[in-house]
Amino acid sequence: MMAHGSGGKKMHELIRNLFVKYFRNPFLESGGDAAVVPPEPGHIAFTTDSYVVDPLFFPGGDIGKLAVSGTINDLAVSGAAPRYISAGFIIEEGFPVKDLESVVRSMAGTAKQAGVQIVAGDTKVVNKGKCDRLFVNTSGVGIISEKHTHIATADHVKAGDQVIISGYVGDHGMAVLSQREGFPVKTGLKSDCTPLNDLIGKVLERFDHVHFMRDPTRGGVATALCELAEGRQFGVLIKEPAIPVREEVMGLSEMFGFDPLYVPCEGRVLIVADQSVSQGILHTLHGHPDGENAAVIGEITTGNWGKVVLETIAGGRRIIHMLTGEQLPRIC
Amino acid sequence: MMAHGSGGKKMHELIRNLFVKYFRNPFLESGGDAAVVPPEPGHIAFTTDSYVVDPLFFPGGDIGKLAVSGTINDLAVSGAAPRYISAGFIIEEGFPVKDLESVVRSMAGTAKQAGVQIVAGDTKVVNKGKCDRLFVNTSGVGIISEKHTHIATADHVKAGDQVIISGYVGDHGMAVLSQREGFPVKTGLKSDCTPLNDLIGKVLERFDHVHFMRDPTRGGVATALCELAEGRQFGVLIKEPAIPVREEVMGLSEMFGFDPLYVPCEGRVLIVADQSVSQGILHTLHGHPDGENAAVIGEITTGNWGKVVLETIAGGRRIIHMLTGEQLPRIC
Repeated sequence: MMAHGSGGKKMHELIRNLFVKYFRNPFLESGGDAAVVPPEPGHIAFTTDSYVVDPLFFPGGDIGKLAVSGTINDLAVSGAAPRYISAGFIIEEGFPVKDLESVVRSMAGTAKQAGVQIVAGDTKVVNKGKCDRLFVNTSGVGIISEKHTHIATADHVKAGDQVIISGYVGDHGMAVLSQREGFPVKTGLKSDCTPLNDLIGKVLERFDHVHFMRDPTRGGVATALCELAEGRQFGVLIKEPAIPVREEVMGLSEMFGFDPLYVPCEGRVLIVADQSVSQGILHTLHGHPDGENAAVIGEITTGNWGKVVLETIAGGRRIIHMLTGEQLPRIC
Repeated sequence: MMAHGSGGKKMHELIRNLFVKYFRNPFLESGGDAAVVPPEPGHIAFTTDSYVVDPLFFPGGDIGKLAVSGTINDLAVSGAAPRYISAGFIIEEGFPVKDLESVVRSMAGTAKQAGVQIVAGDTKVVNKGKCDRLFVNTSGVGIISEKHTHIATADHVKAGDQVIISGYVGDHGMAVLSQREGFPVKTGLKSDCTPLNDLIGKVLERFDHVHFMRDPTRGGVATALCELAEGRQFGVLIKEPAIPVREEVMGLSEMFGFDPLYVPCEGRVLIVADQSVSQGILHTLHGHPDGENAAVIGEITTGNWGKVVLETIAGGRRIIHMLTGEQLPRIC
């Protein structure tokens, strides 16, 4: 109902019966205009993402799990320990409360699993036809220790560093697209969407010399690496045979006409680290459920400044560009 | 274009040519998945709001100014010094870039005026008809000194405290509604939307014993005071003749059938403070352009626990309830 976004009684009921019920924590329950959380030493990481994924529920996740995971991951790949998340809902009039409850429950479960708290929220309701069921914004705050502040800037990246991916590429994009197109996914392909702060935390705890991380979401691995290389005095070389892609994802990609390198992941991290620690990091990743299929897929090169080069299965080399145009709308 | 939300080249162009251009600061320009900002002593305040106001441009402001002001004010009324803001855009395919630029310019100007930085952002584009032109989410981070942490909880509020409003009530709601209804506002009525952190900062700097603050947005002054009183062992008494309402707002409210007490403000603050400082606070407010029309409108009472009572112009008394149903959809 429109009244659920009015600021009045109906909205307070919704907040109490849904958001406070599932997100339960003293910061949220204090009911102020802002959550007030205790001081912590360290730099503050701050990020935001809006989620407009279609469909709202897909194999392996839903818009709620995706939103919380995505924001946690944006913090974690910046070297931060994610702490607090806000949740903003834009809801279409008539959207079933039980579906909203499913999403909220999923957000609460994902946050709990990751050890973060959802401390602030907002609800807007717009008339029927003025948005597509449900959009979710999650913003996040994390804490970065001094020794990890270089990760977000990539300033320590240098030739010889190894490029690692923590698992299969493209699962999220192909799982969501298959569901949207009503394509019968008999293969059991699921979105990889999951919070990676535990995995990344273990890597950072055990190894110095992690020089850069990025979760390859929109635009996929290709775009994430192009962003890394852009304007830098190094290149990136990746080796096609080394990149882990599931057969189902390969098949679906071919069918839909996509290159898996551009298909979004929502539970994978690219790690660029000193050669001296890359095998150790790989070993740590392999010992974690979210990193079992991790692989070294390439390295930072002295040549090809600002460029990403792919060594193909056939042994040829070609330059990889940032995604042009729109490949997969509303995938996150 | 859909491609502007793809994560690829078009999106990077948009970020560079629009967001980085206007929001320009080193945190945003670093281009990481999260902004990394320096450590600061003090509690952290964290808030979020999504804005779906219709129309996007209205007398006295637009969705951008509104979003930045609203998030700044949510932090400021919690006793925080607002520092960093994130901006999440959900854009309907076909929405003119020049209108987006107007909104972004307005956000940048408002942030600059208030001394806060827009350090993180996100852009999603959905197909034509899947949202209504533009929705904006702003989240915010501020710093609270130890001695102001009680303001967000209202735990220091006690009988005898005075209730102050910083200016005219209902301007925002009536200005937006008049514009939406195509009603010729010859009166020059404008939204009051503005960042209040400077005004509030001056009050907190000069006076201890500020016990509670709230910006009376959705649901207006009535709902904000009902929220304050709810479940507390005190009541709130407000005096109708003392509440500053412009004649135009009174007239429009009557015409549309609203009570101005429920009409949202976006540049006003309710302050509850010890009687010993209330006149001093009023004096400080009167000396600031955003508080010229401030007035003491009531007080905290020992009786009527949990209730808000209005003393009417006629001298009668009635209980004020939280807004029921939806009065003014999409006003923020």
